[in-house]
Amino acid sequence: MGRQEILSRLAQRNGRRIVLLVLDGVGDLRTDAQPRTALDEARTPNLDRLASRSSLGRLVPAGTGITPGSGPGHLALFGYEPTSPETDIGRGVLEALGLGLDIAPGTVVARGNFATVDGEGLLTDRRAGRLPGAEGRRICARLASRIEAAGDALGDVAGNGIEVEVHPGEAYRFVLLFRPRAGTPPLGAELADTDPQRLGVAVPPVQAAGDAGEAAARGTAARIAPAVAALQAELRDEERANSFLLRGFSKLPALPGVGELHRLRAAALAGYPLYRGVAKVCGMEIVDCGGSFGQVLDRLEERWDDFDYFFLHVKGTDMAGEDGDLAAKVAAIESVDALLPRLLDLGPDVLAITGDHSTPAPMEAHSWHPVPLLLRSENCFVDECSRFTEVEASRGAIGTIPASDLMGLLLANAGKLAKFGA
Amino acid sequence: MGRQEILSRLAQRNGRRIVLLVLDGVGDLRTDAQPRTALDEARTPNLDRLASRSSLGRLVPAGTGITPGSGPGHLALFGYEPTSPETDIGRGVLEALGLGLDIAPGTVVARGNFATVDGEGLLTDRRAGRLPGAEGRRICARLASRIEAAGDALGDVAGNGIEVEVHPGEAYRFVLLFRPRAGTPPLGAELADTDPQRLGVAVPPVQAAGDAGEAAARGTAARIAPAVAALQAELRDEERANSFLLRGFSKLPALPGVGELHRLRAAALAGYPLYRGVAKVCGMEIVDCGGSFGQVLDRLEERWDDFDYFFLHVKGTDMAGEDGDLAAKVAAIESVDALLPRLLDLGPDVLAITGDHSTPAPMEAHSWHPVPLLLRSENCFVDECSRFTEVEASRGAIGTIPASDLMGLLLANAGKLAKFGA
Repeated sequence: MGRQEILSRLAQRNGRRIVLLVLDGVGDLRTDAQPRTALDEARTPNLDRLASRSSLGRLVPAGTGITPGSGPGHLALFGYEPTSPETDIGRGVLEALGLGLDIAPGTVVARGNFATVDGEGLLTDRRAGRLPGAEGRRICARLASRIEAAGDALGDVAGNGIEVEVHPGEAYRFVLLFRPRAGTPPLGAELADTDPQRLGVAVPPVQAAGDAGEAAARGTAARIAPAVAALQAELRDEERANSFLLRGFSKLPALPGVGELHRLRAAALAGYPLYRGVAKVCGMEIVDCGGSFGQVLDRLEERWDDFDYFFLHVKGTDMAGEDGDLAAKVAAIESVDALLPRLLDLGPDVLAITGDHSTPAPMEAHSWHPVPLLLRSENCFVDECSRFTEVEASRGAIGTIPASDLMGLLLANAGKLAKFGA
Repeated sequence: MGRQEILSRLAQRNGRRIVLLVLDGVGDLRTDAQPRTALDEARTPNLDRLASRSSLGRLVPAGTGITPGSGPGHLALFGYEPTSPETDIGRGVLEALGLGLDIAPGTVVARGNFATVDGEGLLTDRRAGRLPGAEGRRICARLASRIEAAGDALGDVAGNGIEVEVHPGEAYRFVLLFRPRAGTPPLGAELADTDPQRLGVAVPPVQAAGDAGEAAARGTAARIAPAVAALQAELRDEERANSFLLRGFSKLPALPGVGELHRLRAAALAGYPLYRGVAKVCGMEIVDCGGSFGQVLDRLEERWDDFDYFFLHVKGTDMAGEDGDLAAKVAAIESVDALLPRLLDLGPDVLAITGDHSTPAPMEAHSWHPVPLLLRSENCFVDECSRFTEVEASRGAIGTIPASDLMGLLLANAGKLAKFGA
């Protein structure tokens, strides 16, 4: 019996509220060049006071040495095994969620790069000279007009066609959505990237993935390829973006939601679309809010009575880490600390503060390092840690556990799990 | 290859003796209201001295956040994966083991509640007004007479009947045993509870579990239902206990014993029937003894030459925890400490002291928190821990490991495991 199944069998509702506050990328490093982490450096009187009444520990996001993206990082915090095939959120879908698009189940999504080909159709630039965003938006608008003008006819194959949608992303990136028309068979996502990953070769058509491809995937490829070819043809007279590459064909994973699994009424309060999107995939209700912790708290206070599980997301820590800006990361942590009393005043029965992964400033990127965790509840073991830092957390009562174990720990602390066996 | 299979392949006999001393529910909490645990508070000169020559660590009974019952808690300590379906000890069987009944393989056991129905047979009290024990015993005796009077005829269906036995439990509870008569097919245990879990409805007959039920389960239901109906009818003129509900139909799990798995001659010295029962399911020989640690030691000394693995059980720590009585828990620990020299004088080659789960006094219940472990052997790593407490154990050389890993660690320390691979 898998852990999720066990938790699911033991789930019991009660009135207690759980708050999971994710400081994105909060974990950092002590290195030769940076002897203290952002959490070491930050002045955090409120977090310190809370830490001295809490259990500390560390979460391993996706396995020792594995650096997770934001998708798996959050899936693990929400109780899903992030490296299982069932929880795989494809790159196309993740990109679309990051753009705030509402993807229906059954829609196939691909991430696109505008690219440049020469007169013979051979690839000369896989990113079209890193096209600026305005150009990318103009070209997307051109593709959208082409789609609209074509109506049902865009690459339609014997009436078995598809609906296509294009959405601009950052710079040279965009997203294509493919939906089966009403009454046509569903689409599969087992399609190969059309990015040959090298120059001097032609851009291949959309094809089924794998050596031969399953019959269903070949059927999907046959329906999508003509529409993609028609859009490619539309760009032939563009100077730089006269072609494009597609990667990460994918559909929404069919995950059981946290409501179904754990009998939670769960809300996500996140300023950035990607995190809202991942939360939605996990069955949470999205509460619109701005990106600052203050704005998150405004909405939390308003909706406190409506849910018993709240996922709060703070982006500033990760952004500062990605920029390699330790001072900005310290400031992001201190601004959370300053507002922490507002969260505590609500009286959450269980409060966890952690990250979805580390984003150490010296690395300017996500990393594999364990992330500090603070857990406060009536029945947490109050250990001897007096600050919320990486080093203190490594000595805490919770120990170092997989991030996907956190959900069970939160439920246990909230009294939402019955005893296992007699 | 599963861990148990690996251990089993590596098993080698030698003359060394392992003692596993389980202080039931010994783990406790530091909380706002209870800043020190029972182990923190207890004066334990002998345990302290032992701790300073031992490895400490922590055991997670059944997975992070999962609170185990006594069955899974002990199965894990004996080396079984406690959340696997194969090790599931059903509630009927566990209740029977707790009453000290000797259950043969193939016997189906159900846990019963005496209940009250109105003139139309609709349930008005699921516990018959929480009937006192004397009444429960009287009614069980009445049912036993009915069974005896019926002889082979009790609910017999075309000679394909069963033998029935009734045993009183605490208050309104009892146990029914169903055995196939010699020469009849085996009985299955996939039977639905006859407890509708609400009032105002009729008590259903015994039926196969699941939507339709497998043919074998329907066959079992058809053989058991008439006997149960006959016993229900016998009680019709009782004032309060004029009906009963059955739950947790189950058979003994068919576990390979620790002798077979690990080439151990294993003995269980436990004062309470439940723990003896679980040990017996795991193939241990039961050594009768009283419930005090002194009585356990008396028998241990007598039987020291007969076995190479001894499971010793102390109940007082758990009882005090369940009562929320920190002082009693401290006293229970101190009384073990006082007698510890007798155990050490026997010279066990490997000695582990731990719990099957935590029973924190502030919670008055089992909990999910990791349990401290002390392990002493010639080749244990003597770490820097100087006391057997939760906090010291969290810093010990063994780290925090699944409880089901303990058996392998004990065997290794006893030199009873060959090298894996060349």
